[in-house]
Amino acid sequence: MKAFITILIFCSFFSLDAQDHPNLILTPEGVKSIRTSQGKIPLFDRTVEAARNQVDAQIEMGIDVPIPKDLAGGYTHEKHKSNFFTMQKAGVLFQITGEEKYATYIRDMLLQYAEMYPTLGKHPAERSYARGKFFWQCLNDANWLVYTSQAYDCIYDWLDKKTQKKLNKELFRPYAEYISIENPQFFNRIHNHSTWGNAGVGMIGLVMNDEELVDWALNGLDIKVPGDFVKDNDGGAIQLEGQKEAGFFAQLDNAFSPDGYYTEGPYYQRYAMYPFLIFAQGLANKKPELGILDYREGLLIKAVYALIDQTNSAGEFFPINDAQKGMSLASRELVNAVSMAYHYGGKDAELLSLIEAQNRVPLNDSGLSAASGIASGDTKPYSFESQELTDGANGDEGAIGILRSSDLTLMMKYAKHGMGHGHFDRLGFLLYDGEKEVIQDYGSARWVNIEHKDGGGYLKENKSWAKQTVAHNTLVVDKDSHFDGNVEAAEKSSGTPYYFSSSDNVQLVSAKEMNAYDGVQMQRTMAVLDIEELENPLVIDLFSVLAPEGTRYDLPLYYLGELMSTNQKFKTNNDLTPMGNNDGYQHLWLEAKAELTDDVFRMTWFNEKNFYTMTSAVTEGDQALLTRIGANDPNFNLRRDPGLIHRRTGGNTLFASLYEMHGSYNYSDEIPNNSFTSIANLEVLFDSEEYAVIEFKLESGEKYVFAFSLSDKSEESNHKIEFGEMGLEWKGPYEFKKSTK
Amino acid sequence: MKAFITILIFCSFFSLDAQDHPNLILTPEGVKSIRTSQGKIPLFDRTVEAARNQVDAQIEMGIDVPIPKDLAGGYTHEKHKSNFFTMQKAGVLFQITGEEKYATYIRDMLLQYAEMYPTLGKHPAERSYARGKFFWQCLNDANWLVYTSQAYDCIYDWLDKKTQKKLNKELFRPYAEYISIENPQFFNRIHNHSTWGNAGVGMIGLVMNDEELVDWALNGLDIKVPGDFVKDNDGGAIQLEGQKEAGFFAQLDNAFSPDGYYTEGPYYQRYAMYPFLIFAQGLANKKPELGILDYREGLLIKAVYALIDQTNSAGEFFPINDAQKGMSLASRELVNAVSMAYHYGGKDAELLSLIEAQNRVPLNDSGLSAASGIASGDTKPYSFESQELTDGANGDEGAIGILRSSDLTLMMKYAKHGMGHGHFDRLGFLLYDGEKEVIQDYGSARWVNIEHKDGGGYLKENKSWAKQTVAHNTLVVDKDSHFDGNVEAAEKSSGTPYYFSSSDNVQLVSAKEMNAYDGVQMQRTMAVLDIEELENPLVIDLFSVLAPEGTRYDLPLYYLGELMSTNQKFKTNNDLTPMGNNDGYQHLWLEAKAELTDDVFRMTWFNEKNFYTMTSAVTEGDQALLTRIGANDPNFNLRRDPGLIHRRTGGNTLFASLYEMHGSYNYSDEIPNNSFTSIANLEVLFDSEEYAVIEFKLESGEKYVFAFSLSDKSEESNHKIEFGEMGLEWKGPYEFKKSTK
Repeated sequence: MKAFITILIFCSFFSLDAQDHPNLILTPEGVKSIRTSQGKIPLFDRTVEAARNQVDAQIEMGIDVPIPKDLAGGYTHEKHKSNFFTMQKAGVLFQITGEEKYATYIRDMLLQYAEMYPTLGKHPAERSYARGKFFWQCLNDANWLVYTSQAYDCIYDWLDKKTQKKLNKELFRPYAEYISIENPQFFNRIHNHSTWGNAGVGMIGLVMNDEELVDWALNGLDIKVPGDFVKDNDGGAIQLEGQKEAGFFAQLDNAFSPDGYYTEGPYYQRYAMYPFLIFAQGLANKKPELGILDYREGLLIKAVYALIDQTNSAGEFFPINDAQKGMSLASRELVNAVSMAYHYGGKDAELLSLIEAQNRVPLNDSGLSAASGIASGDTKPYSFESQELTDGANGDEGAIGILRSSDLTLMMKYAKHGMGHGHFDRLGFLLYDGEKEVIQDYGSARWVNIEHKDGGGYLKENKSWAKQTVAHNTLVVDKDSHFDGNVEAAEKSSGTPYYFSSSDNVQLVSAKEMNAYDGVQMQRTMAVLDIEELENPLVIDLFSVLAPEGTRYDLPLYYLGELMSTNQKFKTNNDLTPMGNNDGYQHLWLEAKAELTDDVFRMTWFNEKNFYTMTSAVTEGDQALLTRIGANDPNFNLRRDPGLIHRRTGGNTLFASLYEMHGSYNYSDEIPNNSFTSIANLEVLFDSEEYAVIEFKLESGEKYVFAFSLSDKSEESNHKIEFGEMGLEWKGPYEFKKSTK
Repeated sequence: MKAFITILIFCSFFSLDAQDHPNLILTPEGVKSIRTSQGKIPLFDRTVEAARNQVDAQIEMGIDVPIPKDLAGGYTHEKHKSNFFTMQKAGVLFQITGEEKYATYIRDMLLQYAEMYPTLGKHPAERSYARGKFFWQCLNDANWLVYTSQAYDCIYDWLDKKTQKKLNKELFRPYAEYISIENPQFFNRIHNHSTWGNAGVGMIGLVMNDEELVDWALNGLDIKVPGDFVKDNDGGAIQLEGQKEAGFFAQLDNAFSPDGYYTEGPYYQRYAMYPFLIFAQGLANKKPELGILDYREGLLIKAVYALIDQTNSAGEFFPINDAQKGMSLASRELVNAVSMAYHYGGKDAELLSLIEAQNRVPLNDSGLSAASGIASGDTKPYSFESQELTDGANGDEGAIGILRSSDLTLMMKYAKHGMGHGHFDRLGFLLYDGEKEVIQDYGSARWVNIEHKDGGGYLKENKSWAKQTVAHNTLVVDKDSHFDGNVEAAEKSSGTPYYFSSSDNVQLVSAKEMNAYDGVQMQRTMAVLDIEELENPLVIDLFSVLAPEGTRYDLPLYYLGELMSTNQKFKTNNDLTPMGNNDGYQHLWLEAKAELTDDVFRMTWFNEKNFYTMTSAVTEGDQALLTRIGANDPNFNLRRDPGLIHRRTGGNTLFASLYEMHGSYNYSDEIPNNSFTSIANLEVLFDSEEYAVIEFKLESGEKYVFAFSLSDKSEESNHKIEFGEMGLEWKGPYEFKKSTK
């Protein structure tokens, strides 16, 4: 308590009333509230304390502003990165505590940057389409500016005019010009790179009252991108087809769907959210007349919810498209985003449970608001709901469907391609049991920022393996990736949502893909069913294809865990060669193969503590291939994960499978429970262009039938089909019932 | 509180004073204490409550005593197993609560067993050398008797005389005879199987006051094992060479070293401890004149400590010999053992921290004692210390050496073979970073009790892979396993401890192996050093060999994680074939190979959150092979783990390596710290039959020299050697110092 009193006394020297700044993320009123609540809001106090420890340690170490040299992971890169994080925190601490050592630290560091800046050319590393100065790419220079402008705002009024002017003129204005008008191919895109650029330039413009910079940031540059910039380093187009506008508003118009889904997927959305939200906070504070938080019906807040909803039980994002697995709600970007959504989005008490798990808050009005809510005991658990999130600026370019039921989370993707970071994975899916992957998406082939691995950037196996269709849980036709692996072709269309329903005991998603292969129509229908005889919800997977006779289908399933047993005779290979030369097959070993017999193919695996069984209907001539990732991998960049490919040659066909999560086992009592599947049989009763009907039988004797109308999804339509000596009548897109046959 | 009052009133009907039983594990006095402490000792109350829930649920389901049919994992096996666990708990609950439903449940179940028993021949499964009746092996029948005798003791005085007599005569006496005199090849061994047999027979003898059974249990049978029983199903000898005695005392004399180490290793020690300790408790209660807990200077309590000390930070046992990984202090056997060691071993408050982590106690005097200690706030953290645990009945047949320093745990094995469950792994080691494996031991190839995997028993890959030398982190000569993979040959000798020291900043273990290969002498010296410039302790590994020129050495290292980088040029294979035909090589794929150049071979890998680097001195002609387990594995029984083999052809030689644990990275902030090794170089300065001297240099410039005397370990000897233009003098077995060269 003594420390606080000392601080408050000290603070009395330093009145906020006569000041303009801070006015970007902190405001004079906000700072007042923070000061008066010190010692009363535990989570906020802890976060202040943690920040103080970090910044004090950095101050102790002294300032280092090295000549830029390294790529990500290298010393100079990581040092400049840590500098901007530290300055941002130091700025906040200066405002909260009034201790001048924090302001002095920022000023001295900025002066060193100001000395160095005019002497720098482009960063020596030449690999980026938009080389930065402090960093190898403008993107990181923009990161620096987004954080540093916040620090600068916090000490702006404290600086003497001369220093202010020097920094404005010799560091910040030229810096902002470099990443905007000098690099329009970076600044004027519809892309997360540009979002950072727009935010950095806009925020420093707000701090310096430089309206020109703010205008560039909001509305883009009236400069044509030189014609020699066509693609970025990830293969993404610099100019989107038909793109007319640029700048922050254009990002908001184009990057998100009305549901808040971001076409690059949650990993990049997380990254992009920070500049979107932090710049928006600055605009809300300084230019309230723009109504930025109400823009597109509160899009930015919706986007935070969309991010939260794209996670497993551990808060880890679905690793679709280029995404490093394990990125989660614990990230610094989400610490900012969730508190902001709480503060500006109506104080939704369910968000507080996520903030409690984050165990830190941003040091600003939002963070204080969230920490106060928690201290008041307002927290409610977050309800993760089944939902469809549309893609495309107008919400009419595909979607992802998320089905949840107790510990089960299933996600199917039928969205847009996702630009340069997209994967060729139309109609792919992933399945979680709590936080555990049951059917995995590989994610990206990359170790972000780890210099050992090609400087921490994308590895060449990202393109040759991770983006290819065979690396995903979706259909490969004739061993080619969707759209022949061509990003531009993939960008021209999206998957087609067909039906989505999340009623209590039948949850269902169905979508079509008409463009991935010429002359091939695909439709996948996945259902999550609560079945009273089973321990957990059951997943039905119906993959329907219309294609010419003689088409070769490979349907991969990337199960995670150790194979326990199958009902088929696999012949293992003792001489492994890559399964192909391209489209990802060059990275697969064929460990074993079976010519499928019997009515069903059944395989059980074990992962950590639980058992999982796939049961698939077998058609004559079907094969199963057990694969292992790792061929043609000279630098050991790929994980040696297992896979299963269901192979079939034919014309119009239906792949029907069930996925069951069951049982448990732990290593200290060694007692398995329910380690065998409860599914006795699975049969395709009817398969046409219009309908798919299956029946499955449990070991306990019950039979269930599931029927789906593939071409008429009206809730009012009546359907009647006959097969064998039986028939089925129902109303609406689907029927699910106990079979009385 | 109301429930307790009801119970106490009810209990007044049921006085303990006039009774003999229970007198095995529970005693009338103990039961009184338990009853009076109800509601006062939280951990004990919780355990009672949990037991009550379990047993009530079983009572609710009704009694099922099925005709024996299945192997482990199958219904009848698991049902009989769950029956004995439930009866044991029900017996205790009857004593604690006085509720007759528990006694009735046991009686009714026993009567069903008594009906069935006389009708049974041997179990239909024929795979065991000693087939049981309820189970496929006598071992499990003995398990049943150890638990059931406790239940029987609890209701013995409650039963009417007629039922008592019927059960004694028609069930228990013939049951005890079957697993003893009818199966001497099971009962009369020095082996954990016989420990269970001895305990079961002895305990039921104590309950029934059948002194003949108690005598057989304590002193073995005076029956010769029929000559056709030579080996058990695991290849272990039925009669040990020179074995004269059998029975419980002989087990105590032979199974443990004076340090409490059990030659089969901790996984089996854990399993064997339960019958050792539970029978000993019965003997302590009923035959205090035997002084069983003081036998061999308190051996049984020492053995509990030895078990505790053979774990990583998660309490998981070192998976040496046949051992399923993940078995830990959380197991039911250790729940009993640790509380008993607390109660009978001097109330060591450090044990309470382990019992707190177990979060349950046995429902007897020991458990009450431990739970009371915790409730009184006596708990202290357990200090895991570096130590050498000798093997052999007299402590003169090898040892294991355990070195610990902050998060680092290193274990080197130079013990006896470990009988039928031993692996050919002399001088092998394993290394942990907290609970994480850095250098792993494969463990056994088995999924205990999981029926999918060959009924839950040992898989054939256990012998063909897991036991072989190349599956371990130790030297393979000319591609043959130690002792040519012959258990009897291996049993004839042990490793030879040479030097062990655990002073503060240099911890050191050195041992020799003179018998594994004809004409080859091996000595491994491993040191754990605290070095001020490094984040974590550093490991030195010096493997010295004396052998004829032209010998082919393979030194495997089973690192766990993803390979980050190496300083060598590896050529990867795109056509994988098994690396050999036998001795485990048939299960290895060769993924990549390098002809080693440069002074050192350096390899960094990443596992979960941390980086690890091996630095090895290179001799001309050395090769490095990156391997993957999984060839010749038709049923997918083996994990696809990576390995590294350092290959050299030569005569006398020294393999010198350093293992460094460093840095960190997490997936939600993506910032790597200290991801590169701090070791700049490593050089062998001197290598002879008498000495090994290395020098390593840090990136920060400091150099360190480590010298070791391989043949004179006297602390008093002075050593002087010269090499190049330098020399080194020191006193005692080793020298470690900053080098001033």
